[in-house]
This record gives sequence, C-alpha cells and structure tokens, in this order.
Amino acid sequence: MTKPAHDVVAIGNAIVDILSQSEDAFLAQEGMAKGSMQLMFSPEEADALYAKMGPGIEASGGSAANTVAGIAALGGKCGFIGQVADDQLGEVFAHDVRSVGIDFGTPARAGAPTTARCLIFVTPDGQRTMNTFLGASQFLPAAALDRDLIADAAILYLEGYLWDPEEPRAAMRAAIDIARGAGRKVAFTLSDTFCISRHGGDFRTLIADGLIDILFANEAELLALAEVEDFDAAVAKIAPQVPTLVVTRSENGAIALQNGTKASVAAEPIAKVVDTTGAGDLFAAGFLHGQAQGWDLEKSLRLGAICAAEIISHFGARPQVDMKALVAEKLG
Amino acid sequence: MTKPAHDVVAIGNAIVDILSQSEDAFLAQEGMAKGSMQLMFSPEEADALYAKMGPGIEASGGSAANTVAGIAALGGKCGFIGQVADDQLGEVFAHDVRSVGIDFGTPARAGAPTTARCLIFVTPDGQRTMNTFLGASQFLPAAALDRDLIADAAILYLEGYLWDPEEPRAAMRAAIDIARGAGRKVAFTLSDTFCISRHGGDFRTLIADGLIDILFANEAELLALAEVEDFDAAVAKIAPQVPTLVVTRSENGAIALQNGTKASVAAEPIAKVVDTTGAGDLFAAGFLHGQAQGWDLEKSLRLGAICAAEIISHFGARPQVDMKALVAEKLG
Repeated sequence: MTKPAHDVVAIGNAIVDILSQSEDAFLAQEGMAKGSMQLMFSPEEADALYAKMGPGIEASGGSAANTVAGIAALGGKCGFIGQVADDQLGEVFAHDVRSVGIDFGTPARAGAPTTARCLIFVTPDGQRTMNTFLGASQFLPAAALDRDLIADAAILYLEGYLWDPEEPRAAMRAAIDIARGAGRKVAFTLSDTFCISRHGGDFRTLIADGLIDILFANEAELLALAEVEDFDAAVAKIAPQVPTLVVTRSENGAIALQNGTKASVAAEPIAKVVDTTGAGDLFAAGFLHGQAQGWDLEKSLRLGAICAAEIISHFGARPQVDMKALVAEKLG
Repeated sequence: MTKPAHDVVAIGNAIVDILSQSEDAFLAQEGMAKGSMQLMFSPEEADALYAKMGPGIEASGGSAANTVAGIAALGGKCGFIGQVADDQLGEVFAHDVRSVGIDFGTPARAGAPTTARCLIFVTPDGQRTMNTFLGASQFLPAAALDRDLIADAAILYLEGYLWDPEEPRAAMRAAIDIARGAGRKVAFTLSDTFCISRHGGDFRTLIADGLIDILFANEAELLALAEVEDFDAAVAKIAPQVPTLVVTRSENGAIALQNGTKASVAAEPIAKVVDTTGAGDLFAAGFLHGQAQGWDLEKSLRLGAICAAEIISHFGARPQVDMKALVAEKLG
C-alpha cells in the first residue's frame, strides 16, 4: 500500500464559536453545568441566549475541526468533512480550515438553518461552558462524503458529538466502512458524557466490533463508557477492546495504552489557564501527529500535552503561535 | 440645562474586524504599508485578500465604536450610530455594542453590500495593518440619525474615517448641527493621515469655524493637519484653534492642551505588545471618560494610557478585562 495522501481526515461539526467572558453566577442563573456542552435546538433559543451574552469574539471551532487544524499547524496533511450553510459564518469556517492547508470541499448547504454556532461562556477559572446550535451541521449527508479523501488518509477521525444527529451518524458509519475497506485506521473521540448517555450502546458496539483503532476519552467519558465508577477498573475494561486508548485527565495529564504498553504524561505547566476550549481537541492533535511521525506512546502523549497547554493559554480553540517552532523548542 | 442622558454618542463605521497573525514578508508582498489603513473598494477585492489571509478571529471593531465600548466598560453611558447590513456580521456587531449597554438603534440595511469587514494583519511586533471593506457602513444616511440621542449626549464623537464616504459625511455634518444646537460638545478624531490627505480642507474648516471642541490626533496626523514638519510647530499651530487637543505618541505617551494648560503622560508599561489595533480608540475612551468625571487633564490622559495599554496587550480592539477593576487598581 502506498503512503496515503493525508495523515488524518476528520468528520465533525462545522461550528463557529462565539466566546465571551462570564461570571459563575451567570451559569447558575441560566442553569448551565460548568464545563458541559448543551445543545440548543432552535434558532430562537440560540438568539435568546446570545442576547444575554456579553461581548464576544468569534473563532472557528468544532471539535474534530480543531484537531485537524492542530495537526495541520504541526505540519501534518489533513482533510475535513463537515456541513456549513451558505452564509457568512460558513465562509469564516471554510476560510479558517483552508487557510491552514486543510482540504475541505463539503459544499455549503443552501437555505435555513444557518451555520452552526457555539456560545461559549468562559469563567474566571478558564473553564468553558458550551451551548451549541448545530444548524446546518446536523444535516451532513452521507452523499457529501468524499470517498477518495477518506480512503487515502492514514486515519479517519470522528467526533462523538456528531453521532447525535441522524444524517451525520449515517454518514460516519459509511465513512468507517470506506476507511476500513481501504485498510485505514479509525480514531474516535467520545466528546462528552451526554453523547455516551444517548449513544453509549452504539459506541460500545463499534468498539466490540473492532471498528475503532484509537479511542480518545476524558476520565468522565471513560467511566460512562465502561459503566463503572473506578478509573482503573474503567481502563482495565476498555483498554483490551481497542488497539490504542488515550485518556486525558485535565491537570493530571494523560495516559495511553497500546497493545499492552502503558505510558503517561503530566500536564504541561502554563502560567495561566485562560480558556480550556479545545484542550481535548488539541491533545488529540498532538498525540495523532506524534504517532504519525512514528514516535513512541510517551513522546506522542507529550506532544499532546504541549498542544493542549498552548490552546488553553488563550481564547479560542485553534493554535495562535507557530506550533512547529513551539514543538522544536519543547521537544528539541 | 439638565444632565444629558448619555456621556458620549459616537458616529462611526460599523465594522467587524478579522484579525490574523502575519509575517512582515506578507505585507511587503501585498504592498501594504505597515501600520496603515487601506480601503478595499469591492467585495471581490476583499474576498481575494481574505483568501490569502491566515486563520483569523472575528471581533467587533470600528474606531468610534471601540471608543464608546471602552467608555461603556469604564461605566459611562453611551450611544452609537452606524450602518450595518442585515446579515450575520451585522448581528455580531449589534450584539457586541448592545451587550455592553450602548444604545444602538440604527436599522440594519437590506441587500448588498454586506456589513463592513476589516482584514487586520498583525505582525510579530504587534503592529496592525488594516484593509477595510466599508460595505454597508458607507451608506449611513442622515435620515438614520437619532436626533434626540445626539441632542441629549454631553459629547458627540466623530471619526475621520467616516468622513470619506459621501452619505455619512453629510450625516455627520447634520449631527454636528444637532449637537451644537443643543449646546453639546463635539469631539473629532482625525483617524489616519489618508483621511487628512483627502479631507484636510474640510477638517481645517470645521476647526476654524469653531465646530470641534476636542480634537484627537496622533503625531503623523497632527503634522499632516498643520502642514508643518516639526511636532512643536504643529502643536503651536493647532492648539489655539481647539479648546482641547489630545495628541497620542505611541510608546512616547501622549499630551493634551486645554485652554492654555498643557499636560503629558508616559505610555503605560506593558509586558508585551500583542496587537496595537484600537490603541488610539481606547486612549480616546479613557481620556473622554476622565473628562466626563471632571478629572483634570493629566489624570484624564493617564486613564487614556491605561485603557490603551490594556487593549494592545491582547488581540482585538475591545476591552477583555473588567475595566472598572483595572482602573481602581491603577488609579485607586
């Protein structure tokens, strides 16, 4: 098999984030659970919450899109598949992924709803609480998949968030078939415990069927997937079912298990946590890029930790520094 | 005369900034003069430059709008008049001014062109180079002026940038008449030397006619306005013509002259200049707010310097910290 044209092709929500600094009292008043992601199901609901939000900045987001943007910044060759609407925020999203060299060709969708927006409230502790209006993103049809792009990428990367709406779920199932048929690997991030509450059965089946090669989870997601309350028990239950398991543990770093080998990394120290948006996404970027370079587990984890530290040191979930230079400085 | 309902009502371009980090070589390649503002006259020109731009973040901008956003953050009561289109970026602009408590009621304009965008290239030295597509902003009609809002504000604040397009120029002339008719003050910022190249005659006439109470300029603008090459000579020529003259001098601080009194302030020290976008706008905000509090020239300048320092320490031209707390910390 020849070397694939792309390192990673991701399928995910195509979202523009609107980030605003917020007080804890506001979250309480609005009944938001800090650190969570909640869906907003109508444009009216999204508009009403936006009207209550402070001044914001807009930055392209979307979990899997952030991950490929991170890999591209590290020098990897990536593609992205996701659904924007034919509107200004859709143009912003498309510009931002293409401007870092990511191949993105999913046609914009005409008419309502708009491109997805995520209203992100960042509290003084740097924690992000997200409210997402999926808009056009939830209508990604299987017909929009670029089969050649998927078949010619070393890794297909999927986000659990996008498992929720029906059309993209069918598209992702089709994409898994394409990738596996071409002998490629499939990486999957569980995204949020709510995804597991709603689709844990599907995820467990995908894993049991051997369709997931690299699984990303944070602690809470791993416990929910394993349906146990002890972290070690959860690792012991899930690790044997996937060739590579990566678990991020916020300020406690991360661990990875791969074919019987285990490695861990401490969180990369930073001066101040400004905004945790994208931390997991960029950890995945660093890990996947390290693996694509043929690095061992520990060094791949370290790259994940470095990328996560960069992203939480500023507002927004896409890298703001020269990542290659940063990595050269940190890893030599 | 009763206390006016608003401290400052501003008329300016209603712009959403798109900020991206850029190398000096890119500016050279595109023939951009670092630190300047250039207009892009067609959507096609704007799209072509955007396609060459790196990944960006979007943040509401517009010079005078930034100034009133700064005053609002300091606790002042402000209004804004400016033209957005009926599109997503227009909604973002309107949200961001309203969310800080600014009264903004200019109706969005239907149809093409879009809401104004400013493509801002930020070089590693923190300097910003701007390319503005004025879009809907240049069609602000005099009919859109809220006469009561203007008449009931202590200060009408106008930006030189908006003197360029014909309709807003007529609107600003009408606004000056309303403000002066109601016994209010008029503040004017020269904005950029290109504005003086094109409209210096108008500006000199406004000043000679006694229509400007507070004039803001940077060094280059003051020299261009005075048509002399020496800074002291320029100050000596212009200061007697306006009740209050404020001249910002970047890292050399600022000076103000008011009815024969002169004061100066050093630049506020900061760790790193990240992005100079909005420095002059926020300096004006601090100065005007200080004056509204009845502070003397020197303390008003100091507040200007503090606000400018906050804005250049991060991406984007709107405050990102609790300005009241910052001022309490710095000025006691």
